[in-house]
Amino acid sequence: MRKSFVLIFGLLLALGGCSAVDRLEVAQVGSFQVGGRPVTLSGLPPRELIPTPGAPAIKVDPNGDFEVEAMYVRYTRLLQPRAAYPLLLWHGGGLTGVSFETKPDGQPGWEDFFLKAGHSVYVSDSVERGRASWARYPEIFKTEPFFRSKKEAWELFRIGAAGSYATDPSRRQALPGSQFPIESFDQFMKQGVPRWSTNDAATQAAYNEYVSKVCPCVILVHSQGANFAYEAALAYPNKVKALVLVEPTGSPDPAKTDFAKLRNTPMLWIWADNTEKYALWQTLVARQEKFREGVKAAGGVADLVQLPAVGIRGNSHMMMMDRNSDAIAQLIQGWIDKHGLMR
Amino acid sequence: MRKSFVLIFGLLLALGGCSAVDRLEVAQVGSFQVGGRPVTLSGLPPRELIPTPGAPAIKVDPNGDFEVEAMYVRYTRLLQPRAAYPLLLWHGGGLTGVSFETKPDGQPGWEDFFLKAGHSVYVSDSVERGRASWARYPEIFKTEPFFRSKKEAWELFRIGAAGSYATDPSRRQALPGSQFPIESFDQFMKQGVPRWSTNDAATQAAYNEYVSKVCPCVILVHSQGANFAYEAALAYPNKVKALVLVEPTGSPDPAKTDFAKLRNTPMLWIWADNTEKYALWQTLVARQEKFREGVKAAGGVADLVQLPAVGIRGNSHMMMMDRNSDAIAQLIQGWIDKHGLMR
Repeated sequence: MRKSFVLIFGLLLALGGCSAVDRLEVAQVGSFQVGGRPVTLSGLPPRELIPTPGAPAIKVDPNGDFEVEAMYVRYTRLLQPRAAYPLLLWHGGGLTGVSFETKPDGQPGWEDFFLKAGHSVYVSDSVERGRASWARYPEIFKTEPFFRSKKEAWELFRIGAAGSYATDPSRRQALPGSQFPIESFDQFMKQGVPRWSTNDAATQAAYNEYVSKVCPCVILVHSQGANFAYEAALAYPNKVKALVLVEPTGSPDPAKTDFAKLRNTPMLWIWADNTEKYALWQTLVARQEKFREGVKAAGGVADLVQLPAVGIRGNSHMMMMDRNSDAIAQLIQGWIDKHGLMR
Repeated sequence: MRKSFVLIFGLLLALGGCSAVDRLEVAQVGSFQVGGRPVTLSGLPPRELIPTPGAPAIKVDPNGDFEVEAMYVRYTRLLQPRAAYPLLLWHGGGLTGVSFETKPDGQPGWEDFFLKAGHSVYVSDSVERGRASWARYPEIFKTEPFFRSKKEAWELFRIGAAGSYATDPSRRQALPGSQFPIESFDQFMKQGVPRWSTNDAATQAAYNEYVSKVCPCVILVHSQGANFAYEAALAYPNKVKALVLVEPTGSPDPAKTDFAKLRNTPMLWIWADNTEKYALWQTLVARQEKFREGVKAAGGVADLVQLPAVGIRGNSHMMMMDRNSDAIAQLIQGWIDKHGLMR
């Protein structure tokens, strides 16, 4: 009897060890590139290349065959996901999937949160960004890229008000009650990547191929990624089982959208704090509200959460990096659960 | 007694479930950017930006503060690693850490192999590549980048002989007995990224900061990454516990190297098949052999494996993507084990 008790205790310990949330039971980590096309460059003059600093330039031939306009996807598949579908995290403009990984302050981000909540999680880099790579311009990409400065990010992402950015980190003034860890702002800026304004069609094509390959799925999308997610959901309405829109900044033209297609794709719009203090954000919110009204009128689920209205204050546009990012992830997780998307 | 037996059986099943190799017990997945520096651009004229295809150009200001020259590191930390130290996988030129992830043919790569062998694995993108991002040139990076064509990769990586590349995949002729999955060659080329020839100092600085932050560790490095790994080991000899050099293509000047510093860092050089058929590869091997002799003369472990000599034939420079990549990983794992680096 005593022996059985010890064994039961040992068994419980062993089983408990397998299911604790301080670990992940992972079936596989991996990645792939998806989409893109072959291209051939010919007739270009040789370029000068300096092989080693200080050495004379040598001539190299820029012509040849290349693969361009694919995107990159990294996944962590759980052994026994509790979510009914994989969760795809799509980043915003001038950024990569790193947005969702460990936060700039070193704390776990949303990828970690949703893995521990029981989702197999896919994190991608869109065409032209990060591990998706980029192509020679103006021969393949049509324009030159642009780089987001710290001042632009500081103001655009509603970390500080216009004029509050300073080169010296100690002189920067955040919005009152800001949840962004401003001591890690420069660390955050290391994640930035150049972007082009002329690659939308290629980016959409790759996203659609990604959805076609991996889904059924739930997509959580941030900022500039939203337009690609809307279009992908319209292209594959049966494959996109829900759409979480985190401060989305673009949409298809509501007047030209067949909203009936989105009737069976529950949607959640999330806005953080202080949008009313910026004219740009007011315009962006209004545009999204038009799209949301269209979904609602067609009989779809079109939920709206303005974080301050539910007592979550001080969040920036980069809410997945804010100190209280888990509270927002928990709200999203509750919504996913409510819509029957957990097993 | 019967009850105890059932419980023992249950306990064994539960414990067995925790250690089976079809799963990973992961403590944490995450990432960080390391190294880099702030830079300020000023006095540059406005640039023209086309906000949407077809729209007129608008003027944007390229000046401001930026973060540049950091590198990106992604890690998968096991709950109970059997390896004594984390394993760092460093990629080669014109590529990113994706080299080690899922292979272009969709099969698991070396990251997966070494995770399942019991290592916590770190996979990085060096400065200027992938998620490490890149900086405006010529203002910050001094030159323009170059892009590797399919023909160059096909020949340089010893997949096919000079002249055997064709744009049409069905007309490409691989070397006899090649283990590279040539039907996935174009898929492989989607992983390629542009490179610069003038960023070595910045790249080395970031790698050194990475080693300083994460190690003690074992480093496995491919191709162009080798020079950075040698320099990091010379800078932190007590932190680099072993160095696996997979077809390394550069080294510090052997005549100027203090090899005594490397005496306690066991090293393994691995060469795949057909190096003798390419003058370039003969030169590269000879250079490495000089460096290896230096390590040996100083009393260090300087092991050499030429894969054909141990019966592993047909491998390319991209051996981590070849069909038999697991056989080579197993050989490396055996060497790591032999040198007391597993618990």
